[in-house]
Amino acid sequence: MCGIVGIVGKSNVNQALYDALTVLQHRGQDAAGIVTCEHGRLFLRKDNGLVRDVFHQRHMQRLVGNMGIGHVRYPTAGSSSSAEAQPFYVNSPYGITLAHNGNLTNVERLSREIYESDLRHVNTTSDSEVLLNVFAHELAVRNKLQPTEEDVFAAVSQVHRRCVGGYASVAMVTGYGIVGFRDPHGIRPIVFGQRHTDQGVEYMIASESVALDVLGFTLIRDLAPGEAVYITEDGQLFTRQCAENPQYAPCIFEHVYLARPDSLMDGVSVYKARLRMGEKLAEKIQRERPEHDIDVVIPIPDTSRTSAVELANQLGVKFREGFVKNRYIGRTFIMPGQAARKKSVRQKLNAIDLEFRGKNVLLVDDSIVRGTTCKQIIQMAREAGAKKVYFCSAAPAVRYPNVYGIDMPSAHELIAHGRTTEEVAELIGADWLLYQDLEDLKEAVGGGKVKIDAFDCAVFDGQYVTGDVNEQYLDRIEQARNDAAKSTVERVSAIIDLHNN
Amino acid sequence: MCGIVGIVGKSNVNQALYDALTVLQHRGQDAAGIVTCEHGRLFLRKDNGLVRDVFHQRHMQRLVGNMGIGHVRYPTAGSSSSAEAQPFYVNSPYGITLAHNGNLTNVERLSREIYESDLRHVNTTSDSEVLLNVFAHELAVRNKLQPTEEDVFAAVSQVHRRCVGGYASVAMVTGYGIVGFRDPHGIRPIVFGQRHTDQGVEYMIASESVALDVLGFTLIRDLAPGEAVYITEDGQLFTRQCAENPQYAPCIFEHVYLARPDSLMDGVSVYKARLRMGEKLAEKIQRERPEHDIDVVIPIPDTSRTSAVELANQLGVKFREGFVKNRYIGRTFIMPGQAARKKSVRQKLNAIDLEFRGKNVLLVDDSIVRGTTCKQIIQMAREAGAKKVYFCSAAPAVRYPNVYGIDMPSAHELIAHGRTTEEVAELIGADWLLYQDLEDLKEAVGGGKVKIDAFDCAVFDGQYVTGDVNEQYLDRIEQARNDAAKSTVERVSAIIDLHNN
Amino acid sequence: MCGIVGIVGKSNVNQALYDALTVLQHRGQDAAGIVTCEHGRLFLRKDNGLVRDVFHQRHMQRLVGNMGIGHVRYPTAGSSSSAEAQPFYVNSPYGITLAHNGNLTNVERLSREIYESDLRHVNTTSDSEVLLNVFAHELAVRNKLQPTEEDVFAAVSQVHRRCVGGYASVAMVTGYGIVGFRDPHGIRPIVFGQRHTDQGVEYMIASESVALDVLGFTLIRDLAPGEAVYITEDGQLFTRQCAENPQYAPCIFEHVYLARPDSLMDGVSVYKARLRMGEKLAEKIQRERPEHDIDVVIPIPDTSRTSAVELANQLGVKFREGFVKNRYIGRTFIMPGQAARKKSVRQKLNAIDLEFRGKNVLLVDDSIVRGTTCKQIIQMAREAGAKKVYFCSAAPAVRYPNVYGIDMPSAHELIAHGRTTEEVAELIGADWLLYQDLEDLKEAVGGGKVKIDAFDCAVFDGQYVTGDVNEQYLDRIEQARNDAAKSTVERVSAIIDLHNN
Amino acid sequence: MCGIVGIVGKSNVNQALYDALTVLQHRGQDAAGIVTCEHGRLFLRKDNGLVRDVFHQRHMQRLVGNMGIGHVRYPTAGSSSSAEAQPFYVNSPYGITLAHNGNLTNVERLSREIYESDLRHVNTTSDSEVLLNVFAHELAVRNKLQPTEEDVFAAVSQVHRRCVGGYASVAMVTGYGIVGFRDPHGIRPIVFGQRHTDQGVEYMIASESVALDVLGFTLIRDLAPGEAVYITEDGQLFTRQCAENPQYAPCIFEHVYLARPDSLMDGVSVYKARLRMGEKLAEKIQRERPEHDIDVVIPIPDTSRTSAVELANQLGVKFREGFVKNRYIGRTFIMPGQAARKKSVRQKLNAIDLEFRGKNVLLVDDSIVRGTTCKQIIQMAREAGAKKVYFCSAAPAVRYPNVYGIDMPSAHELIAHGRTTEEVAELIGADWLLYQDLEDLKEAVGGGKVKIDAFDCAVFDGQYVTGDVNEQYLDRIEQARNDAAKSTVERVSAIIDLHNN
Repeated sequence: MCGIVGIVGKSNVNQALYDALTVLQHRGQDAAGIVTCEHGRLFLRKDNGLVRDVFHQRHMQRLVGNMGIGHVRYPTAGSSSSAEAQPFYVNSPYGITLAHNGNLTNVERLSREIYESDLRHVNTTSDSEVLLNVFAHELAVRNKLQPTEEDVFAAVSQVHRRCVGGYASVAMVTGYGIVGFRDPHGIRPIVFGQRHTDQGVEYMIASESVALDVLGFTLIRDLAPGEAVYITEDGQLFTRQCAENPQYAPCIFEHVYLARPDSLMDGVSVYKARLRMGEKLAEKIQRERPEHDIDVVIPIPDTSRTSAVELANQLGVKFREGFVKNRYIGRTFIMPGQAARKKSVRQKLNAIDLEFRGKNVLLVDDSIVRGTTCKQIIQMAREAGAKKVYFCSAAPAVRYPNVYGIDMPSAHELIAHGRTTEEVAELIGADWLLYQDLEDLKEAVGGGKVKIDAFDCAVFDGQYVTGDVNEQYLDRIEQARNDAAKSTVERVSAIIDLHNN
Repeated sequence: MCGIVGIVGKSNVNQALYDALTVLQHRGQDAAGIVTCEHGRLFLRKDNGLVRDVFHQRHMQRLVGNMGIGHVRYPTAGSSSSAEAQPFYVNSPYGITLAHNGNLTNVERLSREIYESDLRHVNTTSDSEVLLNVFAHELAVRNKLQPTEEDVFAAVSQVHRRCVGGYASVAMVTGYGIVGFRDPHGIRPIVFGQRHTDQGVEYMIASESVALDVLGFTLIRDLAPGEAVYITEDGQLFTRQCAENPQYAPCIFEHVYLARPDSLMDGVSVYKARLRMGEKLAEKIQRERPEHDIDVVIPIPDTSRTSAVELANQLGVKFREGFVKNRYIGRTFIMPGQAARKKSVRQKLNAIDLEFRGKNVLLVDDSIVRGTTCKQIIQMAREAGAKKVYFCSAAPAVRYPNVYGIDMPSAHELIAHGRTTEEVAELIGADWLLYQDLEDLKEAVGGGKVKIDAFDCAVFDGQYVTGDVNEQYLDRIEQARNDAAKSTVERVSAIIDLHNN
Repeated sequence: MCGIVGIVGKSNVNQALYDALTVLQHRGQDAAGIVTCEHGRLFLRKDNGLVRDVFHQRHMQRLVGNMGIGHVRYPTAGSSSSAEAQPFYVNSPYGITLAHNGNLTNVERLSREIYESDLRHVNTTSDSEVLLNVFAHELAVRNKLQPTEEDVFAAVSQVHRRCVGGYASVAMVTGYGIVGFRDPHGIRPIVFGQRHTDQGVEYMIASESVALDVLGFTLIRDLAPGEAVYITEDGQLFTRQCAENPQYAPCIFEHVYLARPDSLMDGVSVYKARLRMGEKLAEKIQRERPEHDIDVVIPIPDTSRTSAVELANQLGVKFREGFVKNRYIGRTFIMPGQAARKKSVRQKLNAIDLEFRGKNVLLVDDSIVRGTTCKQIIQMAREAGAKKVYFCSAAPAVRYPNVYGIDMPSAHELIAHGRTTEEVAELIGADWLLYQDLEDLKEAVGGGKVKIDAFDCAVFDGQYVTGDVNEQYLDRIEQARNDAAKSTVERVSAIIDLHNN
Repeated sequence: MCGIVGIVGKSNVNQALYDALTVLQHRGQDAAGIVTCEHGRLFLRKDNGLVRDVFHQRHMQRLVGNMGIGHVRYPTAGSSSSAEAQPFYVNSPYGITLAHNGNLTNVERLSREIYESDLRHVNTTSDSEVLLNVFAHELAVRNKLQPTEEDVFAAVSQVHRRCVGGYASVAMVTGYGIVGFRDPHGIRPIVFGQRHTDQGVEYMIASESVALDVLGFTLIRDLAPGEAVYITEDGQLFTRQCAENPQYAPCIFEHVYLARPDSLMDGVSVYKARLRMGEKLAEKIQRERPEHDIDVVIPIPDTSRTSAVELANQLGVKFREGFVKNRYIGRTFIMPGQAARKKSVRQKLNAIDLEFRGKNVLLVDDSIVRGTTCKQIIQMAREAGAKKVYFCSAAPAVRYPNVYGIDMPSAHELIAHGRTTEEVAELIGADWLLYQDLEDLKEAVGGGKVKIDAFDCAVFDGQYVTGDVNEQYLDRIEQARNDAAKSTVERVSAIIDLHNN
């Protein structure tokens, strides 16, 4: 998961890009970057760290220009790399920079192709650098001294023909404009909007609508699957459907966990979707455990709070915030002669005994992935005096890895992989466990919305919408993941990019 | 407001001090420091910034020793200074370091006295450095080669005789032990506890019990007003009442806003106190506005959520989180030729329109200080479509400055200073406004607890428990505050400490 | 002036590149950079500062690989830019990095050509980035999946056809090898050598032979004008004359001032050349001032010492080091309300009065550029008690700007521009002044060496060997220089590169 | 060896202190510090590193005030510590800061005494912190609210009674003035001078007169052994002999190696002293080797150049600079899996073969300590083609450790310890070796100067002027040195000061 943004403005856009990245920071806290363009020259700043740590006054002063793009990164493991900050740059043609959210599933073949056909060197293992080079190559072969929107859209069309996977991207063509495009399944989100200023209309492309809101832009709409939007440096906006057989199949997990509740995504309010997840859960409890003895509903902060409050409403049970989240998490240092200790969940959450003592509590989380945190939290609830501890997941059981840009463990590390609900309940130590049904989740998110054909629910049902993901592919990324883990010790600091470390 | 901690352990205490400071980080995000002691030698690290930014691996490796103290700072303005990190150090006698939460109201006289009687130079305007020198002087005049607990307690007794104000402090006597002490009114909080390890019992003193909890220490109890606890380097614990006429008058604002909900403070659960504030508010609404047409109760995140959820419960009205807090706030940069812009509330909070559109909403906040934020939030609620916007404050009207260590504006900047509730309502733009009654607040916090004689409620009623705060004093600190503000431009970076900047 | 190095080794070359750059540090103290290549991937570190400040342990650990290139920069002003660190990188074809010493005089046309013919974006005003793109383009048009030495040499030949000016460069073709090439006039120096190790023969290309010496490499020879040397990643070495009409016309100023005395350059010992400059000067004094009353010969440290000691020998006059150089020069800080003061020569040199008092002293410097330092030094000599102060310059009068990569002021700032020796003597305050004759300088440097056809002596005689430098060109760079100076205040920190600032 | 400076000026003294420290940088490149005083408040900046690296614009802006002191450190090993930057500070009485050059030989007893008599905690192993506390204690016992020059001088007198060793110090009494004092043997140098400005007379105290020169101060004189100079904040200057039996016995090694040639030290020009060392050496060669076959005299840069040029003059042999010093020395990095390599002399010096090939060369160095460098240089001379290599030391054989503040190895590491000249010659590989005679050295430095009673020549003759240095003492510091070396690995970064690391 990553966050992307692009702005074509009427004055310097660095502060707006910065503000947008802070609003999108929940999509990636690992690295941040901005590139701006003025008079045909590019200005870049990117580094590992939070937005507030990467950009200082001295960097901002250099990031001049009325258009630019930005990125926050949450590294995706497995087949794709983990050590590069975006945006990426190639100098031919025109000087193009690109920021990307998603993951390509045919990156190996593409990487070989672009070297062989165009002698283009890719210096990282990042699929984003590959995506940039494919786009750059397709624009280059049109060989225009001054590329028009037709050239840009033609290049995007070629990208759709060659690239497979989930991708929402913004790319800046130096001196010409910014293009945003979305993969033909619309797996990863991307929206655009506008703002009126005294100097004229400014346009913004972003991963989530909340970034538009906070900066005072008005949402125009989501990009459709396969669609591209191109905004020229002087402020003309063009859109074009660039895919041949687009299919609307956005990632449902955005609504479960990734997105901010105050975003509208493919026409759906994430907040409202979560309320409905709570409703659906309540109905399932009433259906399956009509005699339940729940005294209090307690969310695991922060994401599940919206679902949990509505779940409690529906059940007519008290809602209480029994866990306090420690907002300031430090690290564990290694002292000479001391063994490294792991930070436990206890340093992230603290239970208010009062709300647990002698009660039957229903804990609500958005999903269960590895299950290790769940287990510790349930243990904390018991130590705080809970009589019984029940557990609800607002999402169905996560049984398959994600290959479209969300960093998730491989199948064998997923607690529900090959296990029944009861087995998971026993492993995490819950008195009983209840998962959302997948149909209920789809209904909660997409209910009544006609334009979404389907959702990418692969983590729940193993059906990968791009059609190219099979056993071998999953085995290969699991292997790559393991290899990467093994070589971590010696390579952790090897910046495998040409950037200035 | 600041956070303090002291630990006498059986192995290196640096990680535990660090962890405790992260748990106390909500009490001060401005600066952090740790000093440890090994074989009669001190190791210090302090700097401006969050705990996680001040301490790196290289610093931690140097902070060796089985005892040490730590501090996080929230600068108090007005008469006291704002630019020094703690702990402070004096080398005579013994080498003493001290960390302090609170504010002395007779610091000017003390500063003069310690120079004249003992030729002690105080290099900052911090009352903490003065407090340290008073304590050091009183310990020095006992002139013992090896100070015992009697000497330490005698020195604390003298501190109580000479110092006026609110103070909770930990001080480390190099090679001997750590003492924690609390002013004779118990204005600022301080607790102590223990932990059993294979090497023996370890002791910890901290501002709030939650720091003990998270580190696996068991709360022994709060220090009583005027009491001191002394733990020798080899692990003996002594306590002593060192004040002549102690009176239990803790700061009630800790419960309203400052403390973490999962802390127990002077025997009171902060969380429970806040639930009761919600109850009392609900009762007042039912009493004063029995015909209210509230559709939904919406808290201003984060502190007021506990009160708001209970308020909604009691009223039988839906509770909804209509505001999403942006957890990642950046800064506004100054570009050449551009005017500085202020970050608005809009960048910290975002409204979910769905919860406002066409509804009568009751917003709940913990308190109203300047009122500027309230006003913007109410405006946001209206823009999000609210029909009517009502406002509740879980605390009474704040009408007087705090002089015991909480950074609050001077009287003239307080919106309720010299104004009625109706006037404030109009200024902030609420359809109606309701403040908690002071008696209700006292009842919510102290109800049934016999050991608290009274509360320091000066910010609400202007009654300062130390008896020495009068018009002239308040005028003087307001003046000092203004002068400081004026000289900010040229002196902002003038570190007025002897520390290594 | 810059320093360049390239090594194809049998194990990691980072330390060797680093050591070579420290030996070449006298050629540029402004910025430093290294890029290495391992398994087709590049690792880069470059920044402003001295070599020892740019590379820390953490950077070196990432610079893995058995081949790499490095650069130290002394910014050249005028038409070329001043804010970029090298090496530069383009990803197409193959991934090529380049480091360059010199200056192109037709950079504006080239820049336009490479955009128009190949849509290549150049993001800086550096001629080095242009040179890289020309080379890259010429290699790309050969369109080989695996480029051979023939392709590399063909590309260099095209570079020679298109680029005009002085340039000595190393370029690394990712995965294939390193090429060094020298402009067809051999204006800037470049040598190569080898070292035998247990793993096989290692090759090194460098600006000066002293870098080979110190690292234990044996000098093979200088590159001839127009010649290129290509060393494949697996250690095969090829050389080729790539220019059509090469002419040996190296910059004579290298011997006067730039090069280290222990370098052999185009077959000439710089040290020996300087001794002979002293001899020639002595002969001129004996010829023109046979009745001189010089008591002592005193060099201006450090470069002129070699000439001065031989001059004293020949004259039979005592040689004494009357000036002590302050090796540690600090900066002048700006305090609020204080005017900035200039560091005077007095802070760089200190006179030992003893050697001046009552004596007629002959000061010897390598050359006179602006004359301002000379004037101050002569003043210092008088204040130290000298009766008479005579002045010798080991080089002729500098009357024209350098356009081949040495940072020199424009014509109007040169003290000897349009002035006679007597006028200069008066301006600098010398009792008499004596310049080396140009013929004597040529004889001192090139005497008896047959292979050097001529020298670039343009700074002395205004004859620019590339034939394209005329009045207009000089006016244009003087203008650019002035414009750059004017915009310095606001742009001084504007990194006009895509690197990570 | 360290450098100290103190200035009482008429405007901010930070820049002047900074400039003075750069001039004194040759006395210590390990750490630097400045403390200034304004309106009774102190401002400090100190850190490891060169002056130019420790002080940035932001630090300088904070160092306000018209008086201050500064320090550059060259760590002294053995009994004293090695990890603290100066100046040091104590807050009682008055707030006193101190910077010190030298070493106390009775530091252990003093450390115990000040704790027992005054409970003063010393947090480092630095004798400078002990010296400061002794001075502070002696000033405190006079118990004056406003100390006069009498009090300051009385305290210095007590310091002389209690402290044994070599020490030249400056101390600042906050709000009152700066005192400089020198041990009763005058072992370490210290001078003072004045400068007239429009605002009045400014005074400066410094380790060497060259610091006065460069800043435009006029040397008044050296402090006599045991003497103190006190300059009040408002510019009154007092001097006083504070020792009972002062004896003039300055360290002769200052003239051999430590001091800058352009300093006047105890009335002697260091430059002239070195010229005479060359003369005396020449006489000894003519005496002992009248038939010598020396072709050329070559100095080992930089210190020996002055002696060598005069030696060559006297012998009538050619003087040539056959070695070029590499001014930019980098470090050796440790790569994973690679063994650490030592930087050889070859990376610091490079031979110009021309001056060695087929010649009998006489190498001249200022002194021979461990002999390892000599050996490598002689080897280099032979590899460069020298027929015979002779070696001269401008100082006698170094056979004993220094205990007064110069960092020298212990006796067993000195190559001449217990060996004859012939044995040393063989070990270093010289064809013959010649040391200066001690009487000649004394004559060269002190010849004709009546006021110097004797020199501290202990490193040559083992006679320690303070009378308290015996076998046991030397054994003890050797032991401490070894222990320190052993614990280096784990403690190297343990900043054992209370300063902010």
